[in-house]
Amino acid sequence: MKRINTAILGATGMIGQSYLYLLSNHPWLQVTSLTGGESAGKKYGVVAKWRMSSDIPEQFRDITVKPTEPEEVKADIIFSALPSSVAKVVEPRFAEAGYCIISDSSAFRPYDDMPVVIPEVNPEHLGIIEVQKSKRKWDGFIVSNPNCTVLGLNIVLKPIHDLLTIKKAVVTTMQAISGAGFPGVPSLSITDNIIPYIAEEEEKVRFEISKIFGSIEDGKIKLSDIKVEVCCNRVPTIDGHLETVYLETEERVDVDRVKDALRSFKGKPQELKLPTAPIPPIIVREEEDRPQPHLDRLAGSVPGMGVTVGRVRRGLDANSLWLHVLSHNTIRGGSGSSILIGELMLAQKMI
Amino acid sequence: MKRINTAILGATGMIGQSYLYLLSNHPWLQVTSLTGGESAGKKYGVVAKWRMSSDIPEQFRDITVKPTEPEEVKADIIFSALPSSVAKVVEPRFAEAGYCIISDSSAFRPYDDMPVVIPEVNPEHLGIIEVQKSKRKWDGFIVSNPNCTVLGLNIVLKPIHDLLTIKKAVVTTMQAISGAGFPGVPSLSITDNIIPYIAEEEEKVRFEISKIFGSIEDGKIKLSDIKVEVCCNRVPTIDGHLETVYLETEERVDVDRVKDALRSFKGKPQELKLPTAPIPPIIVREEEDRPQPHLDRLAGSVPGMGVTVGRVRRGLDANSLWLHVLSHNTIRGGSGSSILIGELMLAQKMI
Amino acid sequence: MKRINTAILGATGMIGQSYLYLLSNHPWLQVTSLTGGESAGKKYGVVAKWRMSSDIPEQFRDITVKPTEPEEVKADIIFSALPSSVAKVVEPRFAEAGYCIISDSSAFRPYDDMPVVIPEVNPEHLGIIEVQKSKRKWDGFIVSNPNCTVLGLNIVLKPIHDLLTIKKAVVTTMQAISGAGFPGVPSLSITDNIIPYIAEEEEKVRFEISKIFGSIEDGKIKLSDIKVEVCCNRVPTIDGHLETVYLETEERVDVDRVKDALRSFKGKPQELKLPTAPIPPIIVREEEDRPQPHLDRLAGSVPGMGVTVGRVRRGLDANSLWLHVLSHNTIRGGSGSSILIGELMLAQKMI
Amino acid sequence: MKRINTAILGATGMIGQSYLYLLSNHPWLQVTSLTGGESAGKKYGVVAKWRMSSDIPEQFRDITVKPTEPEEVKADIIFSALPSSVAKVVEPRFAEAGYCIISDSSAFRPYDDMPVVIPEVNPEHLGIIEVQKSKRKWDGFIVSNPNCTVLGLNIVLKPIHDLLTIKKAVVTTMQAISGAGFPGVPSLSITDNIIPYIAEEEEKVRFEISKIFGSIEDGKIKLSDIKVEVCCNRVPTIDGHLETVYLETEERVDVDRVKDALRSFKGKPQELKLPTAPIPPIIVREEEDRPQPHLDRLAGSVPGMGVTVGRVRRGLDANSLWLHVLSHNTIRGGSGSSILIGELMLAQKMI
Repeated sequence: MKRINTAILGATGMIGQSYLYLLSNHPWLQVTSLTGGESAGKKYGVVAKWRMSSDIPEQFRDITVKPTEPEEVKADIIFSALPSSVAKVVEPRFAEAGYCIISDSSAFRPYDDMPVVIPEVNPEHLGIIEVQKSKRKWDGFIVSNPNCTVLGLNIVLKPIHDLLTIKKAVVTTMQAISGAGFPGVPSLSITDNIIPYIAEEEEKVRFEISKIFGSIEDGKIKLSDIKVEVCCNRVPTIDGHLETVYLETEERVDVDRVKDALRSFKGKPQELKLPTAPIPPIIVREEEDRPQPHLDRLAGSVPGMGVTVGRVRRGLDANSLWLHVLSHNTIRGGSGSSILIGELMLAQKMI
Repeated sequence: MKRINTAILGATGMIGQSYLYLLSNHPWLQVTSLTGGESAGKKYGVVAKWRMSSDIPEQFRDITVKPTEPEEVKADIIFSALPSSVAKVVEPRFAEAGYCIISDSSAFRPYDDMPVVIPEVNPEHLGIIEVQKSKRKWDGFIVSNPNCTVLGLNIVLKPIHDLLTIKKAVVTTMQAISGAGFPGVPSLSITDNIIPYIAEEEEKVRFEISKIFGSIEDGKIKLSDIKVEVCCNRVPTIDGHLETVYLETEERVDVDRVKDALRSFKGKPQELKLPTAPIPPIIVREEEDRPQPHLDRLAGSVPGMGVTVGRVRRGLDANSLWLHVLSHNTIRGGSGSSILIGELMLAQKMI
Repeated sequence: MKRINTAILGATGMIGQSYLYLLSNHPWLQVTSLTGGESAGKKYGVVAKWRMSSDIPEQFRDITVKPTEPEEVKADIIFSALPSSVAKVVEPRFAEAGYCIISDSSAFRPYDDMPVVIPEVNPEHLGIIEVQKSKRKWDGFIVSNPNCTVLGLNIVLKPIHDLLTIKKAVVTTMQAISGAGFPGVPSLSITDNIIPYIAEEEEKVRFEISKIFGSIEDGKIKLSDIKVEVCCNRVPTIDGHLETVYLETEERVDVDRVKDALRSFKGKPQELKLPTAPIPPIIVREEEDRPQPHLDRLAGSVPGMGVTVGRVRRGLDANSLWLHVLSHNTIRGGSGSSILIGELMLAQKMI
Repeated sequence: MKRINTAILGATGMIGQSYLYLLSNHPWLQVTSLTGGESAGKKYGVVAKWRMSSDIPEQFRDITVKPTEPEEVKADIIFSALPSSVAKVVEPRFAEAGYCIISDSSAFRPYDDMPVVIPEVNPEHLGIIEVQKSKRKWDGFIVSNPNCTVLGLNIVLKPIHDLLTIKKAVVTTMQAISGAGFPGVPSLSITDNIIPYIAEEEEKVRFEISKIFGSIEDGKIKLSDIKVEVCCNRVPTIDGHLETVYLETEERVDVDRVKDALRSFKGKPQELKLPTAPIPPIIVREEEDRPQPHLDRLAGSVPGMGVTVGRVRRGLDANSLWLHVLSHNTIRGGSGSSILIGELMLAQKMI
């Protein structure tokens, strides 16, 4: 199979690096264009302050960074690592020029013709793309990845919500510093400390879960009425968002059946055996002290793509459930999920 | 005023040190006896691996540590910093010998004639001591301090529960490493990590809050039926337990009235102007990113005795409330509260 | 004694806050003016992102921040917390306008008419001020504080160099993150990490120690030829610079005599009993595992002003010495030393 | 090639786990026996508190742990992860029984018939084994790995010492917490802290480097007279020992020639292309802020086996050199080097 030409917009930052790290040996995708702002015109190896491992993969070192302009890029699929403020302006110009964009930014998630997709949860939302293209008169399109905090949570709520009816979820997050990018959180703010607030994060979590659980009606994505209470905290871990989840359900909870549902859950990526699909997508641990970010964030048959669940237990009420959810915020909660969207669309001939 | 002779049982460990740190300039209490296990017979300054500040306060350095035996101690009030397994055996022998014991251990908290007291919340539970003494035929008594995780939470729930009826509390804790004592948590277990479990902690929190909110009936402390769901986590902070609290209430929540109730709350320690009483006991912050352990754990007119609340806000439902609670786990949640119990009993001529 | 009117230039940042923290109860100095850049015109309590403790001292909260202009300030002594790039331009204008400036910036340390002063080590360098004023036609003057890394080291080298002749010092520093200010070091750069380089730091250390040990000749400060090899590292501690020091000496080393010299060392601040003078200035510990930043950074009769030395021992050669030095980088190595300079000048009627 | 039967003594601890992690896909070695103390008789997957990744490699999970006795083990090569106190008694019994032991413990390093080997530096010391066997009347033998702090340093000093004559090395180490094993360093001791002392470490470093640079004379390993001053510190990093190295040399230093010597250095493992040999063994970085433990500890063609050097520069004297050295303390400085010794002996038909 000839590999697909792939571009990364905003390739020098943390998210861009994360894409390159995951794409350095990809069987279907071949990185052919890297774009940047001030770094345009220079070799990637010179301008990228590489932080993913000791060295930039050799194959990217000598690629010349291009300006983030449609005419500078040659690619059949584009992953955008642009900050939201830039994405808002730039991504539509690429879509208009006919490019297929999978975006890590939050810029277009609010719009009802813009799908926010977790391949295992709502692949059917990709269907809205045709509406998007016709309405906006674009030859290309934009698909969004959800927020890093949403991903682990939503993928775990899916099989539970299929089994039981969730009346309310009460979620507390303990989010890693890499979630804020680089330079991101000052060390003086987080060493021996927790910051009990992340700007706009709680709103995003509530909205995006509601959207991902929503349905397409009349050419629009209609929000689900699932009720998610969420409280976001920044903690001094490097990678891996850990969340405590308390659920009130309509039905009595049978913990073993919940675990079975979690363990046997799979989605289109697993059915299609996509290269970046973790099998299984959800790992349920029985030890009383797992998941732990340091030990479990790289779990999964594709490292960092598995979501780990632990301490699945009933609350005081028969209709309640507690569990912990952990997912790698920059892999499963970022570039890895975007790549999985790309793989799904390629496998389904949507690109 | 002549200062009261005071003994610390188990004085060399972290909790014992914490007592000495707080008592080094106490207006009412004078440390006269220190006890220890293997360290008995040696100078405190030689055996204590002091960790509270750069040096042991001069006045304690030359005190000879005694065996933890009733006949070795001379004191009108005793603070016990013994581990629970030892406390279970030893404290009753001191009580039988006529000593007034205020214990930091969990050994006797489960018994219905043993008060677990937060001076601002349930000082009337001290009344059960007469039952305890007569039933157990003790000349002295044992009063317990609540668990470090309970304290901040319970003191904050009190004025809210007085204002509104709490149907259910859903609490996630992010607890500091000092809560596990010394050596406690291995650094390899907690650096760049969170441990999503603390042995027996959740059971203690549920039980003790229920007991503290309980009432004395027929010579027994009868548990309240307040419903507290709790999930405990160990995080890489040194001191200060931070908790997210979600409440479902019978009545609609008026956030401003809740804040007023928190701010104006005071208890007997404040009325009696006890030396270790923080005034006010609860500090409500308006910034969106507070309380933070590193900044707020030493808050209060008596440093470390104030409980800080922040992000007081309504949830999605009108009958719901979110807030963050922070308290210093070894001061307000440990030795400081024990000392406050002692002061309260002295002021009320109960000792 | 009427308290001296005192201004802080650049009062909202970390160094400015550190000054205010130390001056909140100063017996001689009263803060009357605070200046800032973008924050000018607003209340200090509104614009300062206070990080020194849970709250801004009440007395500073309502002071209106002024622009950093000579005509906006009323003060008999000024402490400058300006960044070097700003200090370079602004401080001379204040000096010209007649103000007495004690500066935390490195802007003027290189000049041979600009004293870099550690009150215990080279108070006589203040004599160069007369040259400075006449040469630059200033009514006021600028005195500089040394770099935070220099301070602990230099104060310890002084009594050793008086006792023995230091041929060469080989120093490795492990510097706390607060040394880089706020936001300073990104948490992603330093969590579970060490950065083996601090820009321009090694050059400053070598130069400033040489200058502080220098002598005034022909109206200029002439550098000493003491040879200091230094290698600077950033480590994940919050406050307190720890340094390993290896010395090659002309004479054989008698470790006990070195310790005696360190312990008995005192300077003008101690003789004059200045309010911020630590007595003694150097604390020598005998434990094999001290000094430790977390335990010892606030050592001293004035907390944070004492320099702690430990593990004083001979190397393999008879003419060699190893020791560890720890000092609080923002107190002894920053605002505290500047205040001590101010006190010394006031006591000597130089202001 | 048929894979060699391999045993790990003391397999459940951190070092044992580290061996299994590296041997899970080894082309020559196949793990057939695991031993333990209290865990004997149980499945490895049940007793090992696995910390190397999210899960124990499947192939080891069901191996039954045996008592650490020669008759319980079947193996052609044994890697010992026993603590020194146990190794001292047990390893000789295995050697007597004819086993080939490569030991991670320090128990036998002091003896002059016991080689301490870095395969790239002193492979010829393996020749002493014949003396050892005949003198001790053993059918088997013991070879030791050096201390984790020694390894990175010694392998870097080797090509420098071949190029120039090192008169004296002055070394400061910043050692990761994993170097102390598990539970090892309490989190309360090292969070926001540095411990300026590691028991017996400095003596080991001086002795072992001297031994590794020594020569075999009259059937004994004779110590070299290289002079290494060393000061060891524990810092809050997880893995990777970083060291600052200052060298005084007989000859003038040409920094470029030193870098060339470091870069072109190779030893027998590289010549023989052993499976665990990093090619090259030493990586020289040109950035001013490298090596960093978090970024560089897994460097090398075999991850964690490469030693990274940075900031190679001259000191103030022409005959001096500064550099930073980083190596992974549990891989290159532990099990990885032991495995490399085993590979070297197999390739040379010594086993």
